[in-house]
Amino acid sequence: MTSFLSDRVLSMSESETLAMARLGNELKDKGVNVINMGLGEPDFKTPNRIKEKAKKAIDENFTSYSPVVGYKDLLEAIVKKFKRDNGLDYKTSQIMTSTGAKQCIANICMALINPGDEVVIPAPYWVSYKEVAKFAGGEVKEVLAGVEQDFKITPQQLDEALNEKTKLFIFSNPSNPTGGTYTKEELSGLAKVFEKYPNVYILSDEIYEYINFGTETVSMASFDSLFERVITVNGVSKAFAMTGWRLGYIGAAEKIVKACSKIQGQFTSGTCTITQKAAIQALEMDVSDDEVKNMVTTFNRRRDLIVELVGNLPEITCNKPQGAFYLFPKVSAYFGKSFKGEKINNAKDFAMYLLNEAHIAATPGGAFGAPEYIRFSYATSDENIKEAVQRMESALKELT
Amino acid sequence: MTSFLSDRVLSMSESETLAMARLGNELKDKGVNVINMGLGEPDFKTPNRIKEKAKKAIDENFTSYSPVVGYKDLLEAIVKKFKRDNGLDYKTSQIMTSTGAKQCIANICMALINPGDEVVIPAPYWVSYKEVAKFAGGEVKEVLAGVEQDFKITPQQLDEALNEKTKLFIFSNPSNPTGGTYTKEELSGLAKVFEKYPNVYILSDEIYEYINFGTETVSMASFDSLFERVITVNGVSKAFAMTGWRLGYIGAAEKIVKACSKIQGQFTSGTCTITQKAAIQALEMDVSDDEVKNMVTTFNRRRDLIVELVGNLPEITCNKPQGAFYLFPKVSAYFGKSFKGEKINNAKDFAMYLLNEAHIAATPGGAFGAPEYIRFSYATSDENIKEAVQRMESALKELT
Repeated sequence: MTSFLSDRVLSMSESETLAMARLGNELKDKGVNVINMGLGEPDFKTPNRIKEKAKKAIDENFTSYSPVVGYKDLLEAIVKKFKRDNGLDYKTSQIMTSTGAKQCIANICMALINPGDEVVIPAPYWVSYKEVAKFAGGEVKEVLAGVEQDFKITPQQLDEALNEKTKLFIFSNPSNPTGGTYTKEELSGLAKVFEKYPNVYILSDEIYEYINFGTETVSMASFDSLFERVITVNGVSKAFAMTGWRLGYIGAAEKIVKACSKIQGQFTSGTCTITQKAAIQALEMDVSDDEVKNMVTTFNRRRDLIVELVGNLPEITCNKPQGAFYLFPKVSAYFGKSFKGEKINNAKDFAMYLLNEAHIAATPGGAFGAPEYIRFSYATSDENIKEAVQRMESALKELT
Repeated sequence: MTSFLSDRVLSMSESETLAMARLGNELKDKGVNVINMGLGEPDFKTPNRIKEKAKKAIDENFTSYSPVVGYKDLLEAIVKKFKRDNGLDYKTSQIMTSTGAKQCIANICMALINPGDEVVIPAPYWVSYKEVAKFAGGEVKEVLAGVEQDFKITPQQLDEALNEKTKLFIFSNPSNPTGGTYTKEELSGLAKVFEKYPNVYILSDEIYEYINFGTETVSMASFDSLFERVITVNGVSKAFAMTGWRLGYIGAAEKIVKACSKIQGQFTSGTCTITQKAAIQALEMDVSDDEVKNMVTTFNRRRDLIVELVGNLPEITCNKPQGAFYLFPKVSAYFGKSFKGEKINNAKDFAMYLLNEAHIAATPGGAFGAPEYIRFSYATSDENIKEAVQRMESALKELT
């Protein structure tokens, strides 16, 4: 029997991130002390100044429809942010806000991709890139960059992947799930390749921009030769601990903004008006703000801690992530080993083993296009990190 | 030269509602006293109790990701609302919340429609139904019900429109843009037809439920024979003056909720967490709440006023809407007439004439599938309504 559901929804993968989170919560509900390292959000609260601005917006009755692209003062705040942090000159007509950076990416995929167009995505990648590109009919071509190359693709790899059928290239920098962060020289090498393919659009997801442990922040759009065809995606979720508020934004050519706005106008309209007003306050703060700085310093310390601890575990390889709050160790040396007769065949089995035996929730790498790896979020306390790695060490010893 | 944009976005119509709103605002910015009757939102503020609940949620740091479908206590509040107001027995697993009812409709269209599937939509319809159904690849079949039948289709019309290729039927009750509201007997007549077509799903948009001037509220899902294949769409925007907050919800079969949640998980995730907490308070209030009652009474008085005034204008035909806050008069008797040598050929010209000569912003009916009509929103003061109709009367006299 054929299903009553559409083919496009049937071919969508169930999110492994969410599936593991659900299993972790089920164990927790049974009273098990699960350490959650599966989450993609800061374990901080939204700064008070932002919260106060939101409450003021409520008192002032900003509760009617906003323009689809967002309030004008919000667009202006984003223009200033792009200028201040990234040296980018966007006009307000080149800016648009959405219900999270997720929607920015979905809008762009639906606005640009025709069925059969090729979409090149470096792996490991953030899960929704591939799902949404496929949803829009794109043929996804993955370019794998493993831990041995610090999870960054080379100009040569890029050159081999692009061709006249390529419509869009999607990447995040700093990267979710690896924390890999391209230097200016590395980006410049990629930019030179893109110059050879003038019909390729580039979606540069820079949402982890502020959570960066030393590499200079460089926007892909800052290469003049590419400015017109780079879509810069960013948002307030990660830098300001505002994941629940739902606000992402893009800077892009006016034609692209218009197309995205047409789609969003029929799908959701503008994002929550209270959130928009709160985001204006967030955008006035920058990486030098005390609360932001404190968060980044904390993530930096935890990065050092987890890299040291996990790096000492036998047969596990990891890099030293330069941004975001994830560690993405290669665990495939354990594939083929067994616990009480049950064999670990892949990263999913490995993650399930960690969950059931060590009570650590992590995300298997398959969801990110890297099935030999596993993702740990270190958006959790130092104590949890230490305890988790100890538990993992003991659990790994049980494998034969 | 072919465009770099996708075919699906190129074939999307620009929203006439938004286009007229923009033109009206441009005139206003020039200092012209434009009366805006184009808007689809209440001219009330969000009730204080709801606002206080939102501020409490901010203070209590409900600012992290929520589940994609929404917080559990919100789903429970929606279950109660469906039981209390509509006699419907949904479980929380059959409920899902989205960024506005718009997203509910988009999710459903993308989850159910395969390219080539027929989608039957009674006209006049709300603009996004058609655009989103087309976007999902649906072949839209319109069934026109004019003012002479109070804008409601008959069982016979429905029977003629449905066939084995029909996947989805989409309608709103009370209707945007006409205010037409089906009685229980009328809905029962349609339900009997649907029983003959067991593969057709029914999207029942009930967002204007509370703004109803006497007709008994009947949910399409309350017909037992249809319960499994009706998707009930509702939201807090219209009844509680919360348009900017962005929260819509559905009640539907669990399989449909799961499919919609898969899509939404990749497109936007859950809607704003602060909004979700505010909506719980809204859902505890009902149509008997003083603030809601006051709003409905006010709309009822304005409905009577505008029907009387517009009804007296020459060669204009309108019904007496039973719900929502729109009047949808037939103005085609004026097509072919001229002002200073410029001919009015259609509703768009008519709306432009009203805007430029009478300074009234209204929406031409073409956007709603009814090109002989025009939509006035009476979500504005009695004074504005009186002044607008007077201006219109004078302007109409100028036409020859």
